[in-house]
Amino acid sequence: MASYTISEINNILKAELIGNTTQKIEGPEEIRKASPTQITFIGSKKYAKFWPDSEACAALVHTDLDLEPGENRAFLKVKNVDLAMAKLLELFNPPTPVFDTDIHPTAVIHETAKIGAGCKIGANCYVGKAVELGSEVILYPNVCVFDDTTIGNNTIVWSGTIIRERCIIGSHCIFHTNVSIGADGFGYRPSEDGKGLVKIPQIGNVIIGHYVEIGANSCVDRAKFSSTIIGDGCKIDNLVQIAHNSIMGRSCIMAGHSGLAGSVTLGDGVVIGGSASIKDHTTIHSGATVGAGSGVIGDVEAGKTVLGYPAQDARDMLKQWAAIRQFLKKK
Amino acid sequence: MASYTISEINNILKAELIGNTTQKIEGPEEIRKASPTQITFIGSKKYAKFWPDSEACAALVHTDLDLEPGENRAFLKVKNVDLAMAKLLELFNPPTPVFDTDIHPTAVIHETAKIGAGCKIGANCYVGKAVELGSEVILYPNVCVFDDTTIGNNTIVWSGTIIRERCIIGSHCIFHTNVSIGADGFGYRPSEDGKGLVKIPQIGNVIIGHYVEIGANSCVDRAKFSSTIIGDGCKIDNLVQIAHNSIMGRSCIMAGHSGLAGSVTLGDGVVIGGSASIKDHTTIHSGATVGAGSGVIGDVEAGKTVLGYPAQDARDMLKQWAAIRQFLKKK
Amino acid sequence: MASYTISEINNILKAELIGNTTQKIEGPEEIRKASPTQITFIGSKKYAKFWPDSEACAALVHTDLDLEPGENRAFLKVKNVDLAMAKLLELFNPPTPVFDTDIHPTAVIHETAKIGAGCKIGANCYVGKAVELGSEVILYPNVCVFDDTTIGNNTIVWSGTIIRERCIIGSHCIFHTNVSIGADGFGYRPSEDGKGLVKIPQIGNVIIGHYVEIGANSCVDRAKFSSTIIGDGCKIDNLVQIAHNSIMGRSCIMAGHSGLAGSVTLGDGVVIGGSASIKDHTTIHSGATVGAGSGVIGDVEAGKTVLGYPAQDARDMLKQWAAIRQFLKKK
Repeated sequence: MASYTISEINNILKAELIGNTTQKIEGPEEIRKASPTQITFIGSKKYAKFWPDSEACAALVHTDLDLEPGENRAFLKVKNVDLAMAKLLELFNPPTPVFDTDIHPTAVIHETAKIGAGCKIGANCYVGKAVELGSEVILYPNVCVFDDTTIGNNTIVWSGTIIRERCIIGSHCIFHTNVSIGADGFGYRPSEDGKGLVKIPQIGNVIIGHYVEIGANSCVDRAKFSSTIIGDGCKIDNLVQIAHNSIMGRSCIMAGHSGLAGSVTLGDGVVIGGSASIKDHTTIHSGATVGAGSGVIGDVEAGKTVLGYPAQDARDMLKQWAAIRQFLKKK
Repeated sequence: MASYTISEINNILKAELIGNTTQKIEGPEEIRKASPTQITFIGSKKYAKFWPDSEACAALVHTDLDLEPGENRAFLKVKNVDLAMAKLLELFNPPTPVFDTDIHPTAVIHETAKIGAGCKIGANCYVGKAVELGSEVILYPNVCVFDDTTIGNNTIVWSGTIIRERCIIGSHCIFHTNVSIGADGFGYRPSEDGKGLVKIPQIGNVIIGHYVEIGANSCVDRAKFSSTIIGDGCKIDNLVQIAHNSIMGRSCIMAGHSGLAGSVTLGDGVVIGGSASIKDHTTIHSGATVGAGSGVIGDVEAGKTVLGYPAQDARDMLKQWAAIRQFLKKK
Repeated sequence: MASYTISEINNILKAELIGNTTQKIEGPEEIRKASPTQITFIGSKKYAKFWPDSEACAALVHTDLDLEPGENRAFLKVKNVDLAMAKLLELFNPPTPVFDTDIHPTAVIHETAKIGAGCKIGANCYVGKAVELGSEVILYPNVCVFDDTTIGNNTIVWSGTIIRERCIIGSHCIFHTNVSIGADGFGYRPSEDGKGLVKIPQIGNVIIGHYVEIGANSCVDRAKFSSTIIGDGCKIDNLVQIAHNSIMGRSCIMAGHSGLAGSVTLGDGVVIGGSASIKDHTTIHSGATVGAGSGVIGDVEAGKTVLGYPAQDARDMLKQWAAIRQFLKKK
């Protein structure tokens, strides 16, 4: 396990060191759970009161807090505790799983696939015809990438993830376990006798930008024609559904269990809360936020926050909920 | 890439050709995104106004629209633009991923399994004891099919999908990536000391009819006893949950993130909207529709449309929502 | 197929045998679907009326019901029909899929992994560096377990499930197909130019207790630091999301499509209904119940039942729903 002295940590964080500790620090922990070899964080008064009884030898502390570290304990005073914490996590980030060999002999790689320099391909992967992997791409064991798909440099694909044919994936992406990219969109037409449903071919693909992260067991369907598009820097949580022909701008966030029905358009920096759903052919403009659990059935203006089902302006919705409770109390 | 002349396309569509184009057509695209080698579609006046500025060389156009194609551009006039579009997509449907060999040598197939004529089994698949695959079944790489399961002719199973033991799958089905068929139903009883939960064995199976499509990362649990049943022609989207002992009739539709709790019965042609949930032991009769995001807690009559949570008649629900907003505005 | 005489079955159930049948019994079935070689169950008057027309040769019958079995048919009278039924299902539980060899030669197992006595590891599994499996662990084909993870005795992991590095899994657990354990939590911070998002490393792990069952395609994310914890005896259904740093007590139940956002705490014996979501940093105390489809945005007291979105006391919520309908009817 990696361990650091308080001054080694401060070389990274460049904070204001108050007090000192001779303890070697092995990782971060919450203030009430920390052991003597751990560093904790105190972002507000609420947590300051736990410091005297905490076993932690050190803490990241907000500059505004008036607190003393005590004997053989140290504070690193910072303006932004969350940011300092993120840097601390990078410092203590343990190594990723090892590859004993770059391309595992059990991986099945089509002879026409192009594998960039420094790629790692794990056991039991499948890489199809004319697939192109950039440099330093990592496919963990049991990943499948189908024909004619390209993946940019430094993208990491975790086990169980399947990327279907003809998709275009950017660089520096992370796809977690059991993700489905490029499965057919959900499109049918009535059969000629009116009694059944006939599949509409889904001949498009999925285009994913750079620095996109997609959570475990999430799905991005291929387009009916043209492309389902996810812009650079989008972050998608677990169990999220992105249906065919949806288009996401840059740096959008979709939390767990949320979903876009077909042909939804998101601007840049849109935030979709957990379990929220967006009706097909709806546009949510840049900077808008959809509250958790909401159902959006109409376009949302840029920068607006909506809530509820059917979703409306969040303040109005909160007022309505309060008014209903108030009204019913009187009855 | 396949390309066609306008008259080759019209040989398929049998539409009314107006104007002409010498351009080779390489695929369909929306009217505002189309390039000169693409064909677009104009189903209503709303889109007709974009035609003069579109780069598309041709369009599928509704017969009722009064519009001229212009120089070296062509219209195919049709009564049903959506249906013509579906046929066009079939024409341009690109080839599916290749199998260099029908049964990949890394597939592990039990010696007692029966593999029909023309089956393709990809790399790293597992096919268990006494499994029977009909003819022309396709298992893409990394599929598992467990003991005593049978799969009908021409069914396609995409990578990452697991079909557990003793299930019966029809012909011409498509299961997309990372689907789970036949996992144990969710059933427990209190332990004898009342402090914990004891698993109830789930000894039934899953029976799936013909022409059923199941979306990526969806789940169909095996029955506690007897069978969980999905009727012919049902179409199930991504991330859908179908719990133990549910029974679906013919040609039902379940959109993304929707779910049936245990022992739900759907008639024929039932439509369940996205993220809607159906309480256990509920019956939704033939032709009924459940709106997106709804929670159904009681039986639904044939042909009825319900909405909301708890779900009620959709028109009533819409009126209630409007009335609440109206009432609260006055306050 | 296993079959038993009625007295063999009664040797297990130790019920009161009334009447008799010479029929060999091959399994359980509902009263209206049962064939002459099946046993059914009659827990209440509602089902008693179907007995005369049922083909079943035998039934588990509640002691309070006044009913005669008839010619060559038998009753096993019991106080708790559900419990007797569970025992019957155990009796008829068919064998699990076979392993022709304990450790399949296509499984890729790191030389430093420790595999306990009696483990079975299926085709195309991956077991990483320094993984430790207890005794009698079963990994079905196409499972991945990453570096330094430990799994306790008798735990069963179904195909497609991925367990990431450094997790600690208890004994006697069952993870169904395509489960994701230990994928990164969903954490970002604004980039320094304020235009994008930077990943916060997720350096913690997942700790899962004993006798935990996790349904197909569910996800348990690793902690940002420290651990996401699932207590002994928890039962988690399909497509459930458990976000980073959540902590579940003993014997909690989470139904399908439900989710815990980050840092949620559940006490012991908490029940979360289907599709319900819990806001981050919320505590739900022991014995509380969250109704299906609810959105919980504040702490819930021990033993309380909440419902709706935002969730409130279930009786209040039901009254509100009724009052709204009543009020609107009058208008």
